[in-house]
Amino acid sequence: MAGNVNRKKFLKKPVRPVKIDADSTIEALLRRMGDAAFQGKNLAVAVDIWEQMLKGRTTVFFGLAGAMVPAGLRNVVVHLIKERYIDCLVSTGANLFHDIHETLGRYHWQGSCNMDDNELKDAGIDRIYDVFAVEDEFNAADRYIYDLAERLGKADMRPYTTREFLSVAGEDLAKRGKAEGILTAAYKAGVPVYCPAVADSSIGIALALKDGPDHFVFDVIGDVKETAEIAAKAKTTGVVYVGGGTPKNFIQQTEVTATLQCKDVEGHKYAVQITADSPHWGGLSGCTFEEAQSWGKIAKKSSHVTVNSDATIALPVIVTALAQRLKGYKRKAPLLDLKKSNVVGKRIWERQ
Amino acid sequence: MAGNVNRKKFLKKPVRPVKIDADSTIEALLRRMGDAAFQGKNLAVAVDIWEQMLKGRTTVFFGLAGAMVPAGLRNVVVHLIKERYIDCLVSTGANLFHDIHETLGRYHWQGSCNMDDNELKDAGIDRIYDVFAVEDEFNAADRYIYDLAERLGKADMRPYTTREFLSVAGEDLAKRGKAEGILTAAYKAGVPVYCPAVADSSIGIALALKDGPDHFVFDVIGDVKETAEIAAKAKTTGVVYVGGGTPKNFIQQTEVTATLQCKDVEGHKYAVQITADSPHWGGLSGCTFEEAQSWGKIAKKSSHVTVNSDATIALPVIVTALAQRLKGYKRKAPLLDLKKSNVVGKRIWERQ
Amino acid sequence: MAGNVNRKKFLKKPVRPVKIDADSTIEALLRRMGDAAFQGKNLAVAVDIWEQMLKGRTTVFFGLAGAMVPAGLRNVVVHLIKERYIDCLVSTGANLFHDIHETLGRYHWQGSCNMDDNELKDAGIDRIYDVFAVEDEFNAADRYIYDLAERLGKADMRPYTTREFLSVAGEDLAKRGKAEGILTAAYKAGVPVYCPAVADSSIGIALALKDGPDHFVFDVIGDVKETAEIAAKAKTTGVVYVGGGTPKNFIQQTEVTATLQCKDVEGHKYAVQITADSPHWGGLSGCTFEEAQSWGKIAKKSSHVTVNSDATIALPVIVTALAQRLKGYKRKAPLLDLKKSNVVGKRIWERQ
Amino acid sequence: MAGNVNRKKFLKKPVRPVKIDADSTIEALLRRMGDAAFQGKNLAVAVDIWEQMLKGRTTVFFGLAGAMVPAGLRNVVVHLIKERYIDCLVSTGANLFHDIHETLGRYHWQGSCNMDDNELKDAGIDRIYDVFAVEDEFNAADRYIYDLAERLGKADMRPYTTREFLSVAGEDLAKRGKAEGILTAAYKAGVPVYCPAVADSSIGIALALKDGPDHFVFDVIGDVKETAEIAAKAKTTGVVYVGGGTPKNFIQQTEVTATLQCKDVEGHKYAVQITADSPHWGGLSGCTFEEAQSWGKIAKKSSHVTVNSDATIALPVIVTALAQRLKGYKRKAPLLDLKKSNVVGKRIWERQ
Repeated sequence: MAGNVNRKKFLKKPVRPVKIDADSTIEALLRRMGDAAFQGKNLAVAVDIWEQMLKGRTTVFFGLAGAMVPAGLRNVVVHLIKERYIDCLVSTGANLFHDIHETLGRYHWQGSCNMDDNELKDAGIDRIYDVFAVEDEFNAADRYIYDLAERLGKADMRPYTTREFLSVAGEDLAKRGKAEGILTAAYKAGVPVYCPAVADSSIGIALALKDGPDHFVFDVIGDVKETAEIAAKAKTTGVVYVGGGTPKNFIQQTEVTATLQCKDVEGHKYAVQITADSPHWGGLSGCTFEEAQSWGKIAKKSSHVTVNSDATIALPVIVTALAQRLKGYKRKAPLLDLKKSNVVGKRIWERQ
Repeated sequence: MAGNVNRKKFLKKPVRPVKIDADSTIEALLRRMGDAAFQGKNLAVAVDIWEQMLKGRTTVFFGLAGAMVPAGLRNVVVHLIKERYIDCLVSTGANLFHDIHETLGRYHWQGSCNMDDNELKDAGIDRIYDVFAVEDEFNAADRYIYDLAERLGKADMRPYTTREFLSVAGEDLAKRGKAEGILTAAYKAGVPVYCPAVADSSIGIALALKDGPDHFVFDVIGDVKETAEIAAKAKTTGVVYVGGGTPKNFIQQTEVTATLQCKDVEGHKYAVQITADSPHWGGLSGCTFEEAQSWGKIAKKSSHVTVNSDATIALPVIVTALAQRLKGYKRKAPLLDLKKSNVVGKRIWERQ
Repeated sequence: MAGNVNRKKFLKKPVRPVKIDADSTIEALLRRMGDAAFQGKNLAVAVDIWEQMLKGRTTVFFGLAGAMVPAGLRNVVVHLIKERYIDCLVSTGANLFHDIHETLGRYHWQGSCNMDDNELKDAGIDRIYDVFAVEDEFNAADRYIYDLAERLGKADMRPYTTREFLSVAGEDLAKRGKAEGILTAAYKAGVPVYCPAVADSSIGIALALKDGPDHFVFDVIGDVKETAEIAAKAKTTGVVYVGGGTPKNFIQQTEVTATLQCKDVEGHKYAVQITADSPHWGGLSGCTFEEAQSWGKIAKKSSHVTVNSDATIALPVIVTALAQRLKGYKRKAPLLDLKKSNVVGKRIWERQ
Repeated sequence: MAGNVNRKKFLKKPVRPVKIDADSTIEALLRRMGDAAFQGKNLAVAVDIWEQMLKGRTTVFFGLAGAMVPAGLRNVVVHLIKERYIDCLVSTGANLFHDIHETLGRYHWQGSCNMDDNELKDAGIDRIYDVFAVEDEFNAADRYIYDLAERLGKADMRPYTTREFLSVAGEDLAKRGKAEGILTAAYKAGVPVYCPAVADSSIGIALALKDGPDHFVFDVIGDVKETAEIAAKAKTTGVVYVGGGTPKNFIQQTEVTATLQCKDVEGHKYAVQITADSPHWGGLSGCTFEEAQSWGKIAKKSSHVTVNSDATIALPVIVTALAQRLKGYKRKAPLLDLKKSNVVGKRIWERQ
């Protein structure tokens, strides 16, 4: 029958039921899960694609959304930076604020989501799902940011890109010799950190405590130009998204920006996203990489996978598997040129 | 038995099964759904709480995330502005960019989510779930934004808050006499529009097309100060969130900012959110208003409801019900003082 | 450019932003939402497809999962039966048990999901999300079911299909002259009711209270044969699913069963599902109608839509819109032959 | 301040950021994730609670919903049975049908969810999200089940509980000496398997191919009585749910049934669920264990955790961690008495 002929092209590889082996490494378990299906398979594919990025000459953008630092993923991100599994970090402001809070020696606490929140309020405790934090202690981080901006303003009163500001913060925190965090590790490793919605976080709040008209000014358009240039100059680009939000969109739009600047880009070639969102709500956070291909954000020919999972499950597992697979392999990270780029070139409506 | 005694306090009002009545208005149907349970009841409660905001002296903040303009909710938001169901709009950049695109006379198109996206790419069509748009036509909106910024830069080279910039855009678009949109309606009604992640959108992309070092600079910290002042000066504040993202967080943080500025705020008193996200992922977008109470973002004594629904279903239904209920009622909207606020007062670590 | 040519086939109909009109009926609002996108559009399409079923000679199967009766949708289902918007109901046992509970004159209660559940336990109250019920009162429904089975057993000790048993229950409850419910309305209207997982509910629990070996026996395979025959004999079939679970699967499998019985079926021609589940978890409850087409459960040429929404929002809105649209129209429902069918025909491995 | 005093009771244990260690076992990684938050922590807690069940004298019920066998979790379940990490399996019919399919020597295939499903239909391929199966090959499993029932019917024409039928199937498949599967392993290990919605699956379909009135009859009420007795006779009970559906409800209701039979039960003492559903839709599949406490299904004093995750990710990770932690430990499984139980005792309305 016609059916039998056509069938062969669909039946290439059987699902192999996952064997449980007490002696298995995480890497080996994930390989077996890669022979199965659903999100377990996608988790395994994520490791494969990330590995391809690191073995090739790919500039890896990493987008970090969600309250991942309060949830305990700070050291996972530090690992990504130190081992240079990523080349550029784009984050929500909250994650960076919480990183500063911890780098300054304070904690988040294991709590519960079944609480009387008004009782917590009375106790001066802020809740982030099942995590607690002391409101007063956050004020110390607010003040640290406020004072840092004051010093910067006195030295050089001009708009700063978020990358510049966060690099200065990383340098300053590193000098204080406290525990390693995301900003300190990024400063040391030369990994740029961008925060497109910086005002929409406690960083923005801290800077809004300034009296009078001369508050700190961020050059967020400068961030857009700079990241577009990183993408345009890279041999190949890859992306890893934890959640959606501004980090995902900001990295996605590097390809659009570069295209409108008449630069030669084709979309990111490798793409991994870990998300708890769904495509059918129509938002950018949950959208598929296929949708992104219509925009040219992801290359027509690309390796990509979506892992539908909470990142607090998926990321530690993926990164440990990657660490096991890459043991002994030292990646040569691409050099990024982060001088404030001013040469845009033509605009798309000026092309011939 | 003890059980019987305690039981009474829990059993106040029976669920009344929703009757189907072909002569029912939307408002009447929602009232009946309010006698039932689950999200259908929450939808009804949302109308009740929003009505309370409008009947009292409440300043209503509205947060708009998700691709709501491409999905056809632009006129719903215009209605909210014109009828003054809201006093302050905080939006993602994308929704405002897509609003400009439509105000300039172009369209979004009904499409399908089951497409070959590489074929769409070849045809120059961008997909947003089941909506299509013509990539080239977006360039006209890019250029409009670019040119507007050029004119502004020539007239007055200084950082603009997003509220200032978007007000100028609304004024300019209104002069062109095209169809009414969000920015034009907001300009005419004096409703301020904020865009905390402005760089993370096609607005940011358009401004990043500027060659040389002197690109447009947004004063996003100015936005933080200004919205904190609106919240602090208001008699009472209420919030309505469509989705989460930066708009929700930005409006939530007005209370935190004002508190750190030692101003007298107690958290928003009325709160409605329409969301497709869930609390158990731990992110701000899906978090409960109870969690927000621990932070003081929502008042300890407040009326609040979460409607778990796609906003393209919930919002038109809620707003029509509200329009039916408020027929003939003319709300006296609070006056907002939007001069760039420079008086912050004390910082929290300076209080006695 | 090639792009321009290809583009036209994708750009057929612009998204028309939804206008808010205080004089709008629900039906008219939904028509406008049908000109927009995302789930709001799907909600409108659901009305269109259901209308097509009712205007044609379609046998409409309705699958009811989730705690819809406690949540107040009992009268909506009664309306569907009385107005003959559906021809065959497949339900979870819980919904039917809760229907009996209410028909016997008892209530569910509006509650809250933020409760101390151990305190509720002490008060003898069972919680279903934000609905409360009195545990003791459920015992009356348990006893009613137990006694009914006893009477049946004495009269005619044989396996009953769930359809037979539920029809007897409907008849008996109707005689008691209490308020109209799902089972009484279905009995009167001649709409068969199936409960494939009948043992997995309080109906099953009640019958498990019988001492000794001679408890009631359900003929669940008889239900499978009977529903396959309804589907096979129908001119055309359509389906409406509220949630997934056994009702969705049971109705989907009518086409598979009939195919294996070498009967001439082509899959359901019309299909609507209202679901809060997602395809990417791989389960039947969240799967797309496209996936169902690969199995032949849904016809290759079919009209189908998935509405991602809580049914307590979507169903009352859809059914009211349908009632408004069909005002004055009296549907001629197909006759179902519900004698226990015993002629299966050939099995698929016996076909020539 | 009062705040400081109250605060201490909330701040017991800081979140410890998860360290990435390439030499880490899965068990050790999970322990570190247990020091963090969100679902990653819940994953770790699931291992702890399951371990407690196995170290104590707990009868462990395991509910299996979702297309877990096609997705490659068959051997994981086999491991659970052989190592006696579970004592009683309750499953959807589909998983058992797919198990028989594989035990008979056939496969599921790795596919993709982005397919033209009508093309698949033409090729005779059924799709389950990203898994393919050959429709014709399923017919062999249909026939196997049909023939087995024929043989049983000839030998002993009486209603069979699903546990009896599935045990006979396991015995028969084991004799054929093919690859080990769920039913064969369960037969050998004496682990009973229940299928409350047996008719709602290809098992039911196969039996509905019987011509004439004398088709196979399942005694599903017998299953209810039997599982209630297992629960009532157990020293302590624990539950592990993969997904919701009938398996979760069926196991939950053992406590309700036993209570109505005036037996001495207090609710399950240990409870783990892995789910992709949410509480706010109000259904049983997504409901919390707290809600279950109001019903007495879960004990007031109990250890329980919900892991919001796709089970194809969570289950292999949890079970491997458990295998690593329990290495060398041989559990003494409780003996179950599975003779058809006929002594129910009093009904609740007869108690004094």
